[in-house]
Amino acid sequence: MNDPSVSAPKSVPTPRDPHLRDMADCIRALSMDAVQQAQSGHAGAPMGMADIATILFSEFMQFDAADPHWIDRDRFILSNGHGSMLLYSLLYLTGYKDMPIEEIRRFRQVNSKTPGHPEYRHADGIELTTGPLGQGVAEAVGMALGERIMNASFGDDLVNHYTYVFMGDGCLMEGISQEAISLAGHLKLGRLIAFWDNNSISIDGATRLAVSDNEPERFRASGWHVLEIDGHDTDAIRAAIMTARAVTDQPTMIACKTIIGFGLPTKAGTQKAHSDAPGEEEIAGARKLLNWNSPAFVIPEALLKEWRAIGAKGAEARATWAERVKAAPEPLRQEFERRNDGLLPTNWKQAIADAKTEFVNSGREMATRAASGAVLNHLFAAIPELLGGSADLTPSNNTRATGQIDIEPGKYAGSYIHYGVREHGMAAAMNGLALHGGLIPYGGTFLCFSDYCRPAIRLAAMMRIRTTFVMTHDSIGLGEDGPTHQPVEHLAALRAIPHLGVYRPGDPVETAECWELILEQPRRAALLALSRQPMPLLRKDAGTENRSARGAYVLHEAEGGARTLTLMATGSELHLAVEARAVLQNEGIPTAVISMPCRLLFEEQDAAYKNAVMGETPARVAIDANFSHLRKFWVIL
Amino acid sequence: MNDPSVSAPKSVPTPRDPHLRDMADCIRALSMDAVQQAQSGHAGAPMGMADIATILFSEFMQFDAADPHWIDRDRFILSNGHGSMLLYSLLYLTGYKDMPIEEIRRFRQVNSKTPGHPEYRHADGIELTTGPLGQGVAEAVGMALGERIMNASFGDDLVNHYTYVFMGDGCLMEGISQEAISLAGHLKLGRLIAFWDNNSISIDGATRLAVSDNEPERFRASGWHVLEIDGHDTDAIRAAIMTARAVTDQPTMIACKTIIGFGLPTKAGTQKAHSDAPGEEEIAGARKLLNWNSPAFVIPEALLKEWRAIGAKGAEARATWAERVKAAPEPLRQEFERRNDGLLPTNWKQAIADAKTEFVNSGREMATRAASGAVLNHLFAAIPELLGGSADLTPSNNTRATGQIDIEPGKYAGSYIHYGVREHGMAAAMNGLALHGGLIPYGGTFLCFSDYCRPAIRLAAMMRIRTTFVMTHDSIGLGEDGPTHQPVEHLAALRAIPHLGVYRPGDPVETAECWELILEQPRRAALLALSRQPMPLLRKDAGTENRSARGAYVLHEAEGGARTLTLMATGSELHLAVEARAVLQNEGIPTAVISMPCRLLFEEQDAAYKNAVMGETPARVAIDANFSHLRKFWVIL
Repeated sequence: MNDPSVSAPKSVPTPRDPHLRDMADCIRALSMDAVQQAQSGHAGAPMGMADIATILFSEFMQFDAADPHWIDRDRFILSNGHGSMLLYSLLYLTGYKDMPIEEIRRFRQVNSKTPGHPEYRHADGIELTTGPLGQGVAEAVGMALGERIMNASFGDDLVNHYTYVFMGDGCLMEGISQEAISLAGHLKLGRLIAFWDNNSISIDGATRLAVSDNEPERFRASGWHVLEIDGHDTDAIRAAIMTARAVTDQPTMIACKTIIGFGLPTKAGTQKAHSDAPGEEEIAGARKLLNWNSPAFVIPEALLKEWRAIGAKGAEARATWAERVKAAPEPLRQEFERRNDGLLPTNWKQAIADAKTEFVNSGREMATRAASGAVLNHLFAAIPELLGGSADLTPSNNTRATGQIDIEPGKYAGSYIHYGVREHGMAAAMNGLALHGGLIPYGGTFLCFSDYCRPAIRLAAMMRIRTTFVMTHDSIGLGEDGPTHQPVEHLAALRAIPHLGVYRPGDPVETAECWELILEQPRRAALLALSRQPMPLLRKDAGTENRSARGAYVLHEAEGGARTLTLMATGSELHLAVEARAVLQNEGIPTAVISMPCRLLFEEQDAAYKNAVMGETPARVAIDANFSHLRKFWVIL
Repeated sequence: MNDPSVSAPKSVPTPRDPHLRDMADCIRALSMDAVQQAQSGHAGAPMGMADIATILFSEFMQFDAADPHWIDRDRFILSNGHGSMLLYSLLYLTGYKDMPIEEIRRFRQVNSKTPGHPEYRHADGIELTTGPLGQGVAEAVGMALGERIMNASFGDDLVNHYTYVFMGDGCLMEGISQEAISLAGHLKLGRLIAFWDNNSISIDGATRLAVSDNEPERFRASGWHVLEIDGHDTDAIRAAIMTARAVTDQPTMIACKTIIGFGLPTKAGTQKAHSDAPGEEEIAGARKLLNWNSPAFVIPEALLKEWRAIGAKGAEARATWAERVKAAPEPLRQEFERRNDGLLPTNWKQAIADAKTEFVNSGREMATRAASGAVLNHLFAAIPELLGGSADLTPSNNTRATGQIDIEPGKYAGSYIHYGVREHGMAAAMNGLALHGGLIPYGGTFLCFSDYCRPAIRLAAMMRIRTTFVMTHDSIGLGEDGPTHQPVEHLAALRAIPHLGVYRPGDPVETAECWELILEQPRRAALLALSRQPMPLLRKDAGTENRSARGAYVLHEAEGGARTLTLMATGSELHLAVEARAVLQNEGIPTAVISMPCRLLFEEQDAAYKNAVMGETPARVAIDANFSHLRKFWVIL
């Protein structure tokens, strides 16, 4: 291969403030030592961004390591998640309780809190799972938007923080970055501040092998304020962050020219610094170059003390904030605490019951997308933290409840977001909104376009957060748009994603029940597959019992004898099963119909329930209009 | 909902050249009549872009309707594929044989050549399947690159054409558009000319609801030449295309301000013009406004004659080109024709046999990604049309054969593309390269990131083109990168895509055989799932027989009696099956091992073969490290 490496610096630039360099070198030392010990990982990005992180955390970030869940903390997102040692170093240095030095030593080992990429819920201070490039910056947009929406409801006293995001060249090459920056610029998210680690190096070599974009101009074209600095000049970093915070109606991108693997004597500034263990010799050289005399994994006491003070200094602000919360008028205070605690309003289930009653009383056939829209009309009034949206398919997805107010640029007192034709950006932003806290986001597109946002759906499922994907125009019922719009294999592909609740309701009442199940599981991402075409009302029982709650249930038991045949169906095929049963029963074949709106929930039930539902019959037939079962489907037709 | 509609024009602007307006109105009339008859579809975009299409086709496009497969034709891509009536109108008007008026009348009907979105292979002149937004422009980048690469091999006399692409607001909001324009700008694709239908309307309403980007600046930031015109001013359109063609080292984007549904009296310029039938009254009004007096689906004879002449005028250029081909020196001419005919070199299979011999002789264990790299070393020398690349994971994907020369900006005499961290753009560009003809593209990333390019993989499978996705770091063998990088559900999700050949070879020899199968099926898109970790050599037979050819085969028959157990395995689990068999045979249990590198190929076999392979045993166990079977996998371990 051509060697497009940037030539390595033989020395490190003289720091303006040697003490700040020492502080940053704590991150560098931990990062290179951990990667070396693990014999895999990425030390280059942490070593290159250490100066920026040091200024940001020591002088700007509002946080309290002793209370990682403080809702009004500033958020820090490492979008280039492969540089995870940067984050782990910061968490250890600032004194997060569950990030002792032992966890740093166990970097990239099974069951450690320090896996290859940051994983949400593995340790406090990790705001979200990053690693698949571009996801972090797109989720940060959702977080920053969430801050503004919560601020619009609860005021500056209670919600008033920044979202900072670090991103690498790879994040910016991914298309999702464009959807994210375009949305953030449009919505004027002035409290979003992004740092581009402009180190000119990627895995294949110099980034110029593959990219010639003028990134500052690209961000400006999307309405961002852009600054360009030397990422190792602490004065410039400080000045840039101050400027960025002063700009209130535009997000800011700070392009930081950095040297990847800063401090490594021969590999810094080259593709060799990007990945893999630096090697003992290189590390010894770095120690010399940086004048770092501590053994591996040991931070000099004075420096550690100073870092710990940084981790603790937010305690005062947090306490003052807590006082303000206490002093807030009722019912605002109570509502704020309820939402931050992730509790739903006490009587929200009435909305579900009302929707079911409405469906049963009307008795009419209805597309499940329309039923979902009707459910949302009830829910929207009951749950103020519900936050809707669509990727430019609002009239088709039925995602907008009557009376919902649009979120607009600079105007955040609303509950509906026009995400534009940006499925991937929408899905990731919803994850960010859910992670922010106090909000329950859902957003729509066609089921077929789940493919466009699959990486973000996967992350939602993996993080176990309550992001809800409302996907309409299910299967071949989609109609004349043709194969490009027919999601024939998508159900199979989505059901394969671990932990994702895929719901395919079979009639309006089941649609209401699925919404209820989704809302009452704060730790499960959900996807609703909804029909475009009308479906008959099959469930004529309203009331508060949720028959879908265990994933599958006997909709109609066999009559006139022991079960001979069991028909299982989901979604738009449920009525086919019911109709087939009628014919079979007429012919004297005792037939049961099982509705299975959520296979995952059913799989989680105990054997006794599963056996009771499935029954013991000589034959079972599943009817589900997806590719792998299409033949069976047509046989039944 | 807020009504963000742009107010509708009460009249249409006075045309500079009334005759050109009449020509364009042929497209408008057919589009509105077809959408009205189908009672669904999108007339707005075709009516808005009719003037641009008229100038482009009548004055610039080099094509011959009588020879739609002429390799040196200009390519026309409708990225906003929902405006399919624009394309169908042009094909009918210019006289493509298989697009009679009856097909226009059957717009959006089952089995017509005029489905809701353009479908490749449904009719001549449809260069590719579009509809999922952004795919067309990204594939056009591949086509334009393909033209340059072929030009570098065969010279201006034989390959010398333009790629024109129409794109809508939705195409530009999709992240894939950024990956595409970034790549095109970087590679200086001067013969790519894109027209943005800047009509300010999307399904939710005015585009300003969701987007504030300065698109011209965004394109400039990626190295494009940008022009801004009134899309209904025929002089301006002509001048812009002439300027664009004169710029040779930058792609050009022509931002065309248009009125969606131009000609519709009340709906033009509003969101009501975007989708659905305009209605009889609206259409009657449009006829009046446009002074169009023909009945539905009837084009006045003089206009049709003129359009047909446009469709025929390229015949002369095509004939001259054919003379040049005839006059080209040997072996260049022969090689050019071979590649255009999609025929492989006569002795290419020797490369596969050589690779297999190399593996068997060395006898050593090897990751299948490394085996794939070794196969490519042999293939690269044998098949000059092989065109490699990776989304910035070249050293990990083993996609670069020894001696392969990089394609660089302005230098197209090579066979390796650094696609950057742009999986989606890469996959779509590969589709465009395959569709261009004369080239066989493959490109790599991690299997986990198949999610990032799934919409383009799906289109490759649907179009039945030979795009090959080389996906390494299969399953949990991926290692310490953790769950975000572990493709545990991706095999299931990919195998669900109709027509996609998913190959998961179990050792180096099978890897060579899978490559052979992929290359000899020009009408099947393929995905290779390859391991990061070394796997033992299980196939010790070299030679020319391809035992993987039927998808699955008996690797080891049971010994010492009739088969008692059948173990089926794929990829990295194949050696586990072989090892388990050894234990079981030792214990006196006659056990067969079936290797199944491609389930799809196996499913296509006749029952006799399938039964012979499967055998009749009391138990069969499948071992495949993917999520749905994970438990079985661990039981075997």
